[in-house]
Amino acid sequence: MPEERSGGGVSRPSTVTVRIVGTGLIGTSIGLALSRNGFRVLLTDPSPTAQALAADLGAGRIDDEVAADVIFVAAPPDVAASVVAHQLRRWPDAVVADVASVKQQVADAVRAQVDPAQLRRYVGSHPMAGRERSGAVAAQADLFEGRTWVVCPQDETDPHAVELVQHLARATGAAVETMPAAEHDAAVAVVSHVPQVAASIVAAQLRDLPEAAIALSGGGIRDVTRIAASDPMLWTQILAGNAAAVAPVLQRVAEQLDTVARSLGRLASDATDAEGSRGAVARLIEDGRLGHARIPGKHGAAPATYATVIVPIPDEPGAFARLFHDVGAAGVNLEDLRMEHGVGAPVGLVELSVLPAVVDRLRDVLEDKGWSVHE
Amino acid sequence: MPEERSGGGVSRPSTVTVRIVGTGLIGTSIGLALSRNGFRVLLTDPSPTAQALAADLGAGRIDDEVAADVIFVAAPPDVAASVVAHQLRRWPDAVVADVASVKQQVADAVRAQVDPAQLRRYVGSHPMAGRERSGAVAAQADLFEGRTWVVCPQDETDPHAVELVQHLARATGAAVETMPAAEHDAAVAVVSHVPQVAASIVAAQLRDLPEAAIALSGGGIRDVTRIAASDPMLWTQILAGNAAAVAPVLQRVAEQLDTVARSLGRLASDATDAEGSRGAVARLIEDGRLGHARIPGKHGAAPATYATVIVPIPDEPGAFARLFHDVGAAGVNLEDLRMEHGVGAPVGLVELSVLPAVVDRLRDVLEDKGWSVHE
Repeated sequence: MPEERSGGGVSRPSTVTVRIVGTGLIGTSIGLALSRNGFRVLLTDPSPTAQALAADLGAGRIDDEVAADVIFVAAPPDVAASVVAHQLRRWPDAVVADVASVKQQVADAVRAQVDPAQLRRYVGSHPMAGRERSGAVAAQADLFEGRTWVVCPQDETDPHAVELVQHLARATGAAVETMPAAEHDAAVAVVSHVPQVAASIVAAQLRDLPEAAIALSGGGIRDVTRIAASDPMLWTQILAGNAAAVAPVLQRVAEQLDTVARSLGRLASDATDAEGSRGAVARLIEDGRLGHARIPGKHGAAPATYATVIVPIPDEPGAFARLFHDVGAAGVNLEDLRMEHGVGAPVGLVELSVLPAVVDRLRDVLEDKGWSVHE
Repeated sequence: MPEERSGGGVSRPSTVTVRIVGTGLIGTSIGLALSRNGFRVLLTDPSPTAQALAADLGAGRIDDEVAADVIFVAAPPDVAASVVAHQLRRWPDAVVADVASVKQQVADAVRAQVDPAQLRRYVGSHPMAGRERSGAVAAQADLFEGRTWVVCPQDETDPHAVELVQHLARATGAAVETMPAAEHDAAVAVVSHVPQVAASIVAAQLRDLPEAAIALSGGGIRDVTRIAASDPMLWTQILAGNAAAVAPVLQRVAEQLDTVARSLGRLASDATDAEGSRGAVARLIEDGRLGHARIPGKHGAAPATYATVIVPIPDEPGAFARLFHDVGAAGVNLEDLRMEHGVGAPVGLVELSVLPAVVDRLRDVLEDKGWSVHE
């Protein structure tokens, strides 16, 4: 067990050996991040080409024989549990962590395949990073920088094993959150999986819409449907893997949509019920406003209300540079930014969010520099 | 009729007088935009304070007696039709346009209140702009720059009246789209009103979620729920006003969500039906991908596939300026940009979208300048 090497505390890089099993995007990125930070990283993948590529990229050394302190199983979700079980059996002293994006299903499958004593060395985890591209070639040493990495111990998991995985996750630049697997799955059902399904279904309504109607799309639907550009196979796996947590939330969302649809249907056909129907719609929108206000601001801070200004910028190279040079000259830190596009107009609209205390200074400086500043 | 003054063509500013009835955010902004472009603008509002403020801001001159060629009725949606009818009767030579965000209901109500001959001078329109703030004090001369302004003629509407309203809308900097009222309402139901309801309902699920679960919120749910921060009263009015077009689309979305929920429910409880259930989920996500791909790119162009890179930037003033200075130095035009935040990490992730042809140059230049560039 790792604590024997590190004297019970958190290990220094030079004393910890990490094995990556599965050198795709996530596995190779973990290897790159940990190698860069001085950890010894061993790589293995069923595909000789994939593991050679990961090694060439600097993610570690190809090796399936030397013992490691921690093994990250970065296999596809549907085989993660069997690979974890295999590694727990093969390496009786190693901590074994998986990185699949659903946690209870994997943990249950691992539990069914190993002895209780082996379960002490299993740590479920979920680095919340990833790109549309896959494979070692898309890997990045800083893929996890600024991202959340959830660690989900089982009741049986050795606290030192948890600590070691947390330590390695932090070494990749991620922010670690620790919670039970069921809690993770319930959380991502609401904050990730249900929004994905909702975005896909809203976007699906555009499929057969006339061109002239599509042309009225604005910033709102662009935001709502941005994640609908995702890969159907990947999302089918994720949703199926977390079906027990996702289904009831989706059901609730479907019922609430149905309630609003019925209220509006009554309003359209029969004004006598207007009052009650309007109330149901208003309550729903207000509940959404309250829910939205709970989403954390930057850096996981309590939700902040930022002041927002909109600046039209011409469609030409260098326009952003001029704008952000002037923002920098104001000594103002941006909390958020986004861009909107009008249809058919040669101008972009940049929305800048800043702390309320500095918005007047920002506006003054930008107007001084000749920018038009909206609120 | 205006064509008599302009010889049948589009009028020059100096020959057209515009009256704004209702000097709130939209009315005052129209006044500011048209005054700045040399049109003579007359202002009137039931509130003496509101009209005085609009005049002080430079939106036009207070006057309820001089005849105007075009009257923009910028009254609240629920009184727009009666104000339009009143103006059509009072000024028998003027073109009267409203700016409400639903069009069929207003047109029907106008039709019920005026003679067929008067209907020739009514032009429904919808400038797709607006801010959370309201009132003349929030008005901006360039509120409509880069935005879409939909013009919805009735069958009876005089083509010259339509032309004149289109001309004035363009003079504010907006891009004009012309379509029947029912088509507008059906379009905004799908591209604006249903996404709003979906975003609100997804966000509403966060209302009572534990803090630790909320902390896992990422860029996806932030995008999906951004518009859920909207005003319940305003949206209740909009949804009620377009209830006939919104209700069936919402009903369809609710049914599709229910289908996915049931498929996932079967997957969670009974693996025998797994194949069919997975297929239903995958089809839905794929439909969403196809629908999303139809949303126009910048400037109403055909949807473009942009190349995207992600650059982590430190959380300090001037970081954006440095980044965008370097982007500008690459001679690359940004097509889109957004910012993501990790939870608990002192770094922001800026996503830059550019034409695929220039992404290599962008990456090279940024890496030369010391930025870490992800794909």
